[in-house]
Amino acid sequence: MNHPTTRDLQATLDPQRKSWIDSANDAACDFPIQNLPFGVFSTAQDAQARVGVAIGDQVLDLAVLHDAGLLSLSSAQSANVFARAALNDFIALGRDAWRSVRVQLSSLLATGTAETATLRDDAALRARALVKLADAKLHLPVDIPGYTDFYSSKEHATNVGSMFRDPKNALLPNWSEMPIGYNGRASSVVVSGTPVRRPNGQLKLPDQERPVFGACRKLDIELETGFIVGRGNALGEPIACEDAEAHIFGMVLLNDWSARDIQQWEYVPLGPFNAKTFATTISPWVVTLDALEPFRVAQPVQEPQPLDYLRHAGKHGFDIALEVLLRPEGASEATTIARTNFRHMYWTMAQQLAHHTVAGCNTRVGDLMGSGTISGPTPDSFGSLLELTWNAKNPLELKTGGTRGFIEDGDELTLAGWCQGDGYRVGFGECVGKILPAAR
Amino acid sequence: MNHPTTRDLQATLDPQRKSWIDSANDAACDFPIQNLPFGVFSTAQDAQARVGVAIGDQVLDLAVLHDAGLLSLSSAQSANVFARAALNDFIALGRDAWRSVRVQLSSLLATGTAETATLRDDAALRARALVKLADAKLHLPVDIPGYTDFYSSKEHATNVGSMFRDPKNALLPNWSEMPIGYNGRASSVVVSGTPVRRPNGQLKLPDQERPVFGACRKLDIELETGFIVGRGNALGEPIACEDAEAHIFGMVLLNDWSARDIQQWEYVPLGPFNAKTFATTISPWVVTLDALEPFRVAQPVQEPQPLDYLRHAGKHGFDIALEVLLRPEGASEATTIARTNFRHMYWTMAQQLAHHTVAGCNTRVGDLMGSGTISGPTPDSFGSLLELTWNAKNPLELKTGGTRGFIEDGDELTLAGWCQGDGYRVGFGECVGKILPAAR
Repeated sequence: MNHPTTRDLQATLDPQRKSWIDSANDAACDFPIQNLPFGVFSTAQDAQARVGVAIGDQVLDLAVLHDAGLLSLSSAQSANVFARAALNDFIALGRDAWRSVRVQLSSLLATGTAETATLRDDAALRARALVKLADAKLHLPVDIPGYTDFYSSKEHATNVGSMFRDPKNALLPNWSEMPIGYNGRASSVVVSGTPVRRPNGQLKLPDQERPVFGACRKLDIELETGFIVGRGNALGEPIACEDAEAHIFGMVLLNDWSARDIQQWEYVPLGPFNAKTFATTISPWVVTLDALEPFRVAQPVQEPQPLDYLRHAGKHGFDIALEVLLRPEGASEATTIARTNFRHMYWTMAQQLAHHTVAGCNTRVGDLMGSGTISGPTPDSFGSLLELTWNAKNPLELKTGGTRGFIEDGDELTLAGWCQGDGYRVGFGECVGKILPAAR
Repeated sequence: MNHPTTRDLQATLDPQRKSWIDSANDAACDFPIQNLPFGVFSTAQDAQARVGVAIGDQVLDLAVLHDAGLLSLSSAQSANVFARAALNDFIALGRDAWRSVRVQLSSLLATGTAETATLRDDAALRARALVKLADAKLHLPVDIPGYTDFYSSKEHATNVGSMFRDPKNALLPNWSEMPIGYNGRASSVVVSGTPVRRPNGQLKLPDQERPVFGACRKLDIELETGFIVGRGNALGEPIACEDAEAHIFGMVLLNDWSARDIQQWEYVPLGPFNAKTFATTISPWVVTLDALEPFRVAQPVQEPQPLDYLRHAGKHGFDIALEVLLRPEGASEATTIARTNFRHMYWTMAQQLAHHTVAGCNTRVGDLMGSGTISGPTPDSFGSLLELTWNAKNPLELKTGGTRGFIEDGDELTLAGWCQGDGYRVGFGECVGKILPAAR
């Protein structure tokens, strides 16, 4: 493995670069050669889950590529870390390895490089190494040792505070001083496509003194992104805000399913628990921070200026268009119910990681950190039904008829996200879940 | 492996049973033959961590015993699950295996059984299989995929509610309806003996408009126990309250270190985060539920009667004496600052597990579930300095001079716990941590 140079990395981001896999050159494709997101997949022919990269309408099997000698890693890294059911061992090799693999893959898949012919013209290898996305079963991309969820959209926190606490003091005083977050439940993070069962729980109805037990009546999504920790830190050794991005491997879409009625009754004083532990869905492809580099933008102005440990120079926002679609059972078409952008997020990923570790907490490779619901400034840019319908007071009209206050059984919810380049887009794919009726 | 009978199990609990390891027969020893707690250890001679059982002042090496053919498991379980750095693979074999191993170990270590001579009289094997506890390095006994902390002492919740919310309505209405809990941070769970660094964080001082960054000034313990999940459940398939104890492998002592000033500023609305993620200490020996069976007592009367999903017949409390000791740096002696009992806990472990999973959340082998601070009804039985000193208003006097409102640098805090039998005690060993000064 050669240490990848800035120039090598820049070449992988060149908007003009094309792939010999034609589908990757479609302007609407989420997986052009500029993206190269990592995931884990299996096929009907080979049930062993392994690491792949999405390119156009194909998955490139990195385990096969490595065995064929086409991916060089340093000699200390000779094991085939791609023949694993999770990205963790690859991620643990470090940022130079991620970048080196990115540079090598881009050269192999691009037209007009010295390596163009290597894979393209080897029909036997190509047949083993390329799988149609449509034929791939996608798995959870990482083993997630820890899951943390933040609450970093000012608009979302303001909306929720207005509804449930005090509209005049919607934003709590601590919110502007730190990226508020809480520990989530890692065991119930599932990959896109996994059905989600409506949870049962305690519901406190306004007309009854005691709670009743039953199926959630206010089932909701939270439109989020998540980042995957690529380099951990030891207990007691915080990550400085300026260094934090070097600890991030990449990003996914994340749907933090929420049972609003269960949440409202249980959350004081220790935070949400059963309202959110029944499932969290993430998209299967991890888009690396390297691929997102061209879409870096300034984060919103932070006022008051954060304490020193939360300061970082430069731009730390990312221009990621996001949308939410809802398709009722049997409906021919989904309705786009929200459109927003990750650039609205007040606290940056670097600040989240710096805050998470400042008291000494350790993080580990594969840890998932959710952004918190991403709501924009306008009513059609809110990232939850709670906000979009203002707690079901203003139901949404669906294209295919009917309305929604909250989610109904059989509804399929899809998050989508992409960075718009000039003639191409770096997409996240989809993060989908369909709601099954509650148990019993 | 034979399926262990009730009679076999009863024999392991016989108060009259003695061990040929004399130290185990001392009435004050935590590890008599009735206990047989599981842990993970290594030695200077063999740095490979493996599974052991504490007996008297010795550790019995189960990896050696298995290799010597003295521990029979079913043929499907032929791998040496004891030659591992965590108990998880052994635990995953299931309750019959835990019980069978318990029965076999008890017979090997007891006087007057058919197996007494097998190990006792084999000097070479004994030399390999028995290690002095004093010479053993004790490791975290389980890989902990998830850590949840409950809040199940009525006295503790009432005390905290009185101090920080409203003394007239100290207990929130949801508290009496469910075992309130929150997700903790599994990565920073450490084994007894690991030093704990005082955390830095945001402190909101009463005389200043904005928070300052600095070392925690109100560092505290929380005296808790924790249970280890022995059998998980699938996503969407709750554990019934009546079945829940069969999912529990055993218990440990747990110190949920808490930075009260960081907590007070950060915890609304999503619960404690940096105030508790810097370290959680557990004791190294997991005392099985089987060993605790003779100490089962009725839990407190629950009024109102819980909803159906939280009901279970019979006794689900345990009579576990608990105490907290504080020894300042260099002091000759520790002061016992609190004495209480696990039997005061309002919500049972079975109810905690039933509640945790009722919305569909999955649990996994090795998951750690903290009880919440165990405070008793009297002021000297509170499980935190916050309560013992009433937020430092009534500092504690130490035997060796000086007082404490909260913990000072260099203080060593020890939790101890045991079930008192007739002429013996089933103990948990110690859960110790010494406070290092904050970074920088």
